[in-house]
Amino acid sequence: MADFIKFTSELKVDLMECSASDCHVMAAARVSTKGNEAKFDWTGEARTGLIKYLMSNRHGTPFEHNYFEFFISAPIFVFREFHRHRIGFSYNEESGRYKQLEPKFYIPARERDLMQVPGSKPGRYEYAPASDDDYRQVLSHLEESCVDAYEKYLEMLEHGVAKEVARMHLPVNIYSSMYVACNARSIMAFLSLRQKRTKREPSVLNASATEPWSIVYKGEAFFPSNPMKEINIVADKMEEFLAEKMPITWGAFKEAGYVAP
Amino acid sequence: MADFIKFTSELKVDLMECSASDCHVMAAARVSTKGNEAKFDWTGEARTGLIKYLMSNRHGTPFEHNYFEFFISAPIFVFREFHRHRIGFSYNEESGRYKQLEPKFYIPARERDLMQVPGSKPGRYEYAPASDDDYRQVLSHLEESCVDAYEKYLEMLEHGVAKEVARMHLPVNIYSSMYVACNARSIMAFLSLRQKRTKREPSVLNASATEPWSIVYKGEAFFPSNPMKEINIVADKMEEFLAEKMPITWGAFKEAGYVAP
Amino acid sequence: MADFIKFTSELKVDLMECSASDCHVMAAARVSTKGNEAKFDWTGEARTGLIKYLMSNRHGTPFEHNYFEFFISAPIFVFREFHRHRIGFSYNEESGRYKQLEPKFYIPARERDLMQVPGSKPGRYEYAPASDDDYRQVLSHLEESCVDAYEKYLEMLEHGVAKEVARMHLPVNIYSSMYVACNARSIMAFLSLRQKRTKREPSVLNASATEPWSIVYKGEAFFPSNPMKEINIVADKMEEFLAEKMPITWGAFKEAGYVAP
Amino acid sequence: MADFIKFTSELKVDLMECSASDCHVMAAARVSTKGNEAKFDWTGEARTGLIKYLMSNRHGTPFEHNYFEFFISAPIFVFREFHRHRIGFSYNEESGRYKQLEPKFYIPARERDLMQVPGSKPGRYEYAPASDDDYRQVLSHLEESCVDAYEKYLEMLEHGVAKEVARMHLPVNIYSSMYVACNARSIMAFLSLRQKRTKREPSVLNASATEPWSIVYKGEAFFPSNPMKEINIVADKMEEFLAEKMPITWGAFKEAGYVAP
Repeated sequence: MADFIKFTSELKVDLMECSASDCHVMAAARVSTKGNEAKFDWTGEARTGLIKYLMSNRHGTPFEHNYFEFFISAPIFVFREFHRHRIGFSYNEESGRYKQLEPKFYIPARERDLMQVPGSKPGRYEYAPASDDDYRQVLSHLEESCVDAYEKYLEMLEHGVAKEVARMHLPVNIYSSMYVACNARSIMAFLSLRQKRTKREPSVLNASATEPWSIVYKGEAFFPSNPMKEINIVADKMEEFLAEKMPITWGAFKEAGYVAP
Repeated sequence: MADFIKFTSELKVDLMECSASDCHVMAAARVSTKGNEAKFDWTGEARTGLIKYLMSNRHGTPFEHNYFEFFISAPIFVFREFHRHRIGFSYNEESGRYKQLEPKFYIPARERDLMQVPGSKPGRYEYAPASDDDYRQVLSHLEESCVDAYEKYLEMLEHGVAKEVARMHLPVNIYSSMYVACNARSIMAFLSLRQKRTKREPSVLNASATEPWSIVYKGEAFFPSNPMKEINIVADKMEEFLAEKMPITWGAFKEAGYVAP
Repeated sequence: MADFIKFTSELKVDLMECSASDCHVMAAARVSTKGNEAKFDWTGEARTGLIKYLMSNRHGTPFEHNYFEFFISAPIFVFREFHRHRIGFSYNEESGRYKQLEPKFYIPARERDLMQVPGSKPGRYEYAPASDDDYRQVLSHLEESCVDAYEKYLEMLEHGVAKEVARMHLPVNIYSSMYVACNARSIMAFLSLRQKRTKREPSVLNASATEPWSIVYKGEAFFPSNPMKEINIVADKMEEFLAEKMPITWGAFKEAGYVAP
Repeated sequence: MADFIKFTSELKVDLMECSASDCHVMAAARVSTKGNEAKFDWTGEARTGLIKYLMSNRHGTPFEHNYFEFFISAPIFVFREFHRHRIGFSYNEESGRYKQLEPKFYIPARERDLMQVPGSKPGRYEYAPASDDDYRQVLSHLEESCVDAYEKYLEMLEHGVAKEVARMHLPVNIYSSMYVACNARSIMAFLSLRQKRTKREPSVLNASATEPWSIVYKGEAFFPSNPMKEINIVADKMEEFLAEKMPITWGAFKEAGYVAP
């Protein structure tokens, strides 16, 4: 019976709609100093200097005047973390009360580190690769558990049990989907917490002060963060869209040590 | 000297950019019941029934997946009220610290009721028209005061006084301008509080239950509101854009007694 | 092995800390009309009239100047809904990445309607009681599934699999716990959506206009709502604390048809 | 007539009510790793290490589980900036529509730098002291303007003009008052933007890494900020209350370069 059940490691982020550019930031910022005359062409050329200034001085509001609409497909345990972002995010998600959930479950990919390094501390846990045997064992456990749970789910539904009751024992790796409306500022706040970063060393900071901002690489930040791998992947996909739509904003964000304005 | 100073009653709301339609609401709502299959054509036809259901059951989040960018020109005393709307609104405003403010001041139009009806209660103040003499007197006071203040402002600036200091005595009817990013839900919350409404009578409610929703007229609400005339004008202009871009949403909002979902 | 696993229907809401009274509302409201003189005794007597006026005119901000800190224990599928409330709520929740989750799972109580009435519509689903057989069957499915999942969880942990990986197949009825900071306004917004209500009939409205507000009973609202039973129970417990700490506010909220200001 | 008009430089911040301590932060944080067992004594001893870890890793939510209620008296041009802080702040302010405003106006104190250094750039303006003559001139302009405006205000009120109309020409340095509810996290966000700071040099960063955190002095930050003097004074007064109620949180905030978590 279980052959219609799908196991996958795919985490999908589609950009459904977008009104965003570096020029949006400039228009919003310039109303401060130009007032009525700030209404220039939003499709014009953006100035790197102004955007870098806004970012490094943490003038955050000009980065809110734009719009990204994402459609995201990921397991519930990822959405649980996602929904903790309350500001500048609008959510509409698939409902387990109103819809029969699809038999689609997340399994970690082979390259995902599964094992915890003994002795590593909460908040700074280190992870290690699984052996082939361990990986097979984890997958077999997950899959067995999901197949069994989903079969019981179907059985209860067929029996007339309400969807909101029949789903109670479904696991947190079942897939869900949602629309997410947000803006560049809320995206940057998300990235600042949901992408893995180690602390940027003062010596690097020192060096970067004289280097062009474009060569400050990912992974160096003022503040370290240790997100879960799966939400990090979602964040990376969102970052790609930010980088494409607002390249100067994205560059300035990196130069500012990934601290959202 | 004062002849370059402009007095006006104009309150301007321009829609600079917009990604919004009733189909946006439907796409966001349908992810609840359709999941991945909710990604239908956003330019398709919207269904009145679903949107009315969402509104009257106060499912608010589907109305957040859209984007309106306004440019608003109004006096400071209007912006003071506007900025109290914290949720679903992004603001960037002209700065009195970084920009020399324009000599443009708000004066009430002739038809604006200027006088307070004696004995009317706070929160339910009633207003009456001014006589021609009273109107002239109010205008003459306002204009004299503004001209004098602006001349002193210019004099201080020429003398090297910082803009943020020289503006301290400028009046709250001086014009400012701002970009406002928001969505249909935050607009409706704004309209529900910033448009004058009297309480809808139960008998009217009763009648409307059998009438087509389109003939429920403005001015009948579950909850009364008594906004300041000037912000009401701004709200009316915002409402026009909502009505144009999302006619079904707007109709459903009216039918729900102007209670934002 | 499974005998240490706990199954329960308990949903717990503890009030850990609270600074709230009807006088808080009055002090905040009176600053509008009294300015500096608004600083009266917060432990004094509150006036019903003012609070009813604020509520029925939807002056919401005076209801934000207070503080409730809850500790809530409920299954993940309840928290999933809870966390969609973004405004005026602060959350800190038990982490499946940093903590071994307790073997405690939610099961519906005998009196919880488990069956869906065939033909009832999404958004207005009707539920019916389960027969003794059906109830036993649901419980046996849930319990088997939970026991199996938890045993696999333990096995993986013992094997060195990271907690965030080993928990992927744990079901949404496993218990979690969280601190929630909020205020009377955010609580009322929560109650307005998470307690079951049928639409208040115009005739009832009419009647209530001449009756003392205290006799408007729960269940009559301007707007219907159909929440999940389990979050409704949580909401009811929160409402008890609101009623105890701010009885006039609570009464006015009911009289205003359970529409949060 | 003008002798009843008060001119002052006073900016007042009173703490009306407070439920906040470093232990609040710890309780909220520990629910992540302890779940139900996190409910320890909130009046116990706080651990510096945990709070510093939360701050430097930007785990912000544990700092939201507390409550500060301020009563603030300041001119309108300060409140205009204050109200741009939308998240984690609740406001109720004196109303010019419902209350006759008091004849109390802000004037800069003698030590406030009034002059702008020619050639300094927007966003990084530099200010210089006024000569005695310049100071007298600024004060005389401000005072004349305020007296004239307030006299016209009174005259219009006596004539029956509505308060909301008669106040249109009142200047932005007239005093207002408000209640502000907030929490440690929103206070820190406020301080990070509304206190003057120069950029912390990498060499200082380097040094501070080996020094006890308590000796990192104010004025060294990761990100520079150039607030208006008057809101900086308000921020300093709020900071005193934060420091008194949550000394470890405050210390950790400074050590983290004044970047709010």
